[in-house]
Amino acid sequence: MQTKGVGLIGGGVVGQGVVELLLGRRPELERAAGPYELIGVAVRDRSRPRAFDARLARTPEELIADPRVDVLVEVAGGVDGPALWVDAALKAGKRVVTANKALLAERSEQFDGWLREHPGRLYFEAAVAGGIPIILALDRGLAANRVLKVEGILNGTCNFILTLMERERLGFAEALALAQEKGFAEADPTLDVGGGDTAHKLAVLAGLALGRPVAARDVATEGIQRLSAFDLDWAERNGFRIKMLGIARFEGSELELRVHPTLVRRTRLLSQVMAEFNAVEVEGDLTGPQLFQGRGAGRFPTASAVVSDIVAALRGDRALVGRLPREGFRLRPLGEVVTRHYLHLEVIDQPGVVAKVTSALAEKGISIASMFQPDVALGSQVPLVLTTHPAADAKVEAALASLEGQKFVAGRPVRIRMEG
Amino acid sequence: MQTKGVGLIGGGVVGQGVVELLLGRRPELERAAGPYELIGVAVRDRSRPRAFDARLARTPEELIADPRVDVLVEVAGGVDGPALWVDAALKAGKRVVTANKALLAERSEQFDGWLREHPGRLYFEAAVAGGIPIILALDRGLAANRVLKVEGILNGTCNFILTLMERERLGFAEALALAQEKGFAEADPTLDVGGGDTAHKLAVLAGLALGRPVAARDVATEGIQRLSAFDLDWAERNGFRIKMLGIARFEGSELELRVHPTLVRRTRLLSQVMAEFNAVEVEGDLTGPQLFQGRGAGRFPTASAVVSDIVAALRGDRALVGRLPREGFRLRPLGEVVTRHYLHLEVIDQPGVVAKVTSALAEKGISIASMFQPDVALGSQVPLVLTTHPAADAKVEAALASLEGQKFVAGRPVRIRMEG
Repeated sequence: MQTKGVGLIGGGVVGQGVVELLLGRRPELERAAGPYELIGVAVRDRSRPRAFDARLARTPEELIADPRVDVLVEVAGGVDGPALWVDAALKAGKRVVTANKALLAERSEQFDGWLREHPGRLYFEAAVAGGIPIILALDRGLAANRVLKVEGILNGTCNFILTLMERERLGFAEALALAQEKGFAEADPTLDVGGGDTAHKLAVLAGLALGRPVAARDVATEGIQRLSAFDLDWAERNGFRIKMLGIARFEGSELELRVHPTLVRRTRLLSQVMAEFNAVEVEGDLTGPQLFQGRGAGRFPTASAVVSDIVAALRGDRALVGRLPREGFRLRPLGEVVTRHYLHLEVIDQPGVVAKVTSALAEKGISIASMFQPDVALGSQVPLVLTTHPAADAKVEAALASLEGQKFVAGRPVRIRMEG
Repeated sequence: MQTKGVGLIGGGVVGQGVVELLLGRRPELERAAGPYELIGVAVRDRSRPRAFDARLARTPEELIADPRVDVLVEVAGGVDGPALWVDAALKAGKRVVTANKALLAERSEQFDGWLREHPGRLYFEAAVAGGIPIILALDRGLAANRVLKVEGILNGTCNFILTLMERERLGFAEALALAQEKGFAEADPTLDVGGGDTAHKLAVLAGLALGRPVAARDVATEGIQRLSAFDLDWAERNGFRIKMLGIARFEGSELELRVHPTLVRRTRLLSQVMAEFNAVEVEGDLTGPQLFQGRGAGRFPTASAVVSDIVAALRGDRALVGRLPREGFRLRPLGEVVTRHYLHLEVIDQPGVVAKVTSALAEKGISIASMFQPDVALGSQVPLVLTTHPAADAKVEAALASLEGQKFVAGRPVRIRMEG
């Protein structure tokens, strides 16, 4: 059998894990993939010591131009460089494995072109939920299903922070600092806690469900930065957990795409997924709801997904089955999305405040489901919590806007959408 | 593109679901699979009305002999007939899709032969956990991993009965009757509640983890029939749930294969899987633990898995990646398996009883972790519960044997193994 060549772009945490597995598990992997050779590794800074032989060092361009490279693996991160490399490698007839969700979600038109022009040759299992084989499950495993819903805890940093806030009764800033200290959050955590990373992954999953790539810019995104220990405590006392969810929901001929902190009933398995773990719930029309849970990041969980793709690519197994694209779909704007809402206002406890707040909601046609305010001295600041019956997002937004800035409301109200 | 032919053996619940999907979802499925034709359906009783055209009726032999049949689908059930049909169809050069775990686990040597002689041509996603794509995940998704453990709730009937016992405080017999009434248990429930069905499915999963088929007869199997509402209540009060698990655990060069009711800590997601749902926890050495949960039976969940296999077979996508077989493994006999144990004896409350019971355990070198006995009038029958520190199964068995038949012990003690 002919020896095939693998070229790797990216020598970071995941890249080093991939090299370690390709070199250290050769007997197992070659049984499945046939004989292979690691042709070279392209790294940004050649002077840094690496887990692999310095003679393997190449530039991305050298790997793409090298005819011995049959499978090009991109685990470098970033968007502009990878877009060029993936494109060039596919055009050069190579199979390409990438872990790059930002690339697929930010360049969805180009991604669409790759899928059409090079069918079955682009592998991206590691782009979503690390070692969990969710791409395989959603694409091939549920190939006979119409997907009704994908809901996922797709960012381990957010879930780790929310778990800390709940368990340790911490505010967001304190929990973030602790997560950074423990290595579960980056120095600049914006992409994680702001929801951008979840939106990238949701776009990739929604694209598989829809039958054509979805752009990250079409995902309505809200971060977890404004949550407080009070909100997590309320959730716990009332049978919920707060989870950062990516939600793609098909309803009639409309598709909702949104990322936001969400109150999830504790009876749902998804609410029980804690710490840095990821989970994706997929509802197929034939299978009903399914849950896939595991580690969504880290050197070896992610390298596991990359290497399983490399094995498939070396075997010549096609990357995707693909779905018949659903035509005539309309993206439902967030303002039209109907959910129940949790509203947490800090108010000055004085006569008539509750009447004013509830009137503001009633004016927008929003019906109140429950209300809670602790007993405090008149005149002091106090949390007022209301939950609503299902109401359009824009109406709730308008009601909150009308309340914000009133002199009996301190700061910006917190609003959390409720599911299930 | 050439039209390919599908032949189906089995016109029962799942078979009718498959026919409905093949005929009703042609545009979606043909986009992935290419053009296909349903050549015929073999059913046991041709006189019963079916969801498909009577002109499709064939015998299994006719389908196997028909050169237009490229993909033969076996959803008939039973072992002897299917073994002949699968063998003949593979030898005739067809690809074969089966949902038959009994076949694969009872005829593991023949299964091994099929995998060797017709690599990539036998598809069996529907054999385990219905619509959950666990075969795909374990085989291709975790291809780079050494599998350390597979633990699963693999029988919906058992899980439904245990859920009823816990929620409604019912005994086993009452819960079984209710499950039968609701259609979640067969008139003859032996294969389900006795653990045989779980053992079949565990053998299939363990085979994928080991790299070669495993026989059902190598799985130590114990049913749920002797559990009582008292045991489920104790579990709930002590932070556990009782689940019927299939467990395949690799430790050093040994493999444990066992099916039995198990006390699972409620902190584990697996313990939260209720009613008729299935779940499989797989621990890969790279990924860490992952959980896959969903409906494990029913017309459309199972047909979903069968049709996804049919699509793969029609496309010519290979069925399995396969693992490098682990050599030199020893099957650890159940007697050598070390776990913690829950022991529930019904004793006559008289002076010295606790001393006699604990002495019997001490004689076998078993150390007690906790003990519970409610306060009752001297001389009456009372439950005595002990949990042990980790102890070899055979020692516990011997201690219980020495206690059974003593005049202060009523009936046979209940022993439940504890995990995690």
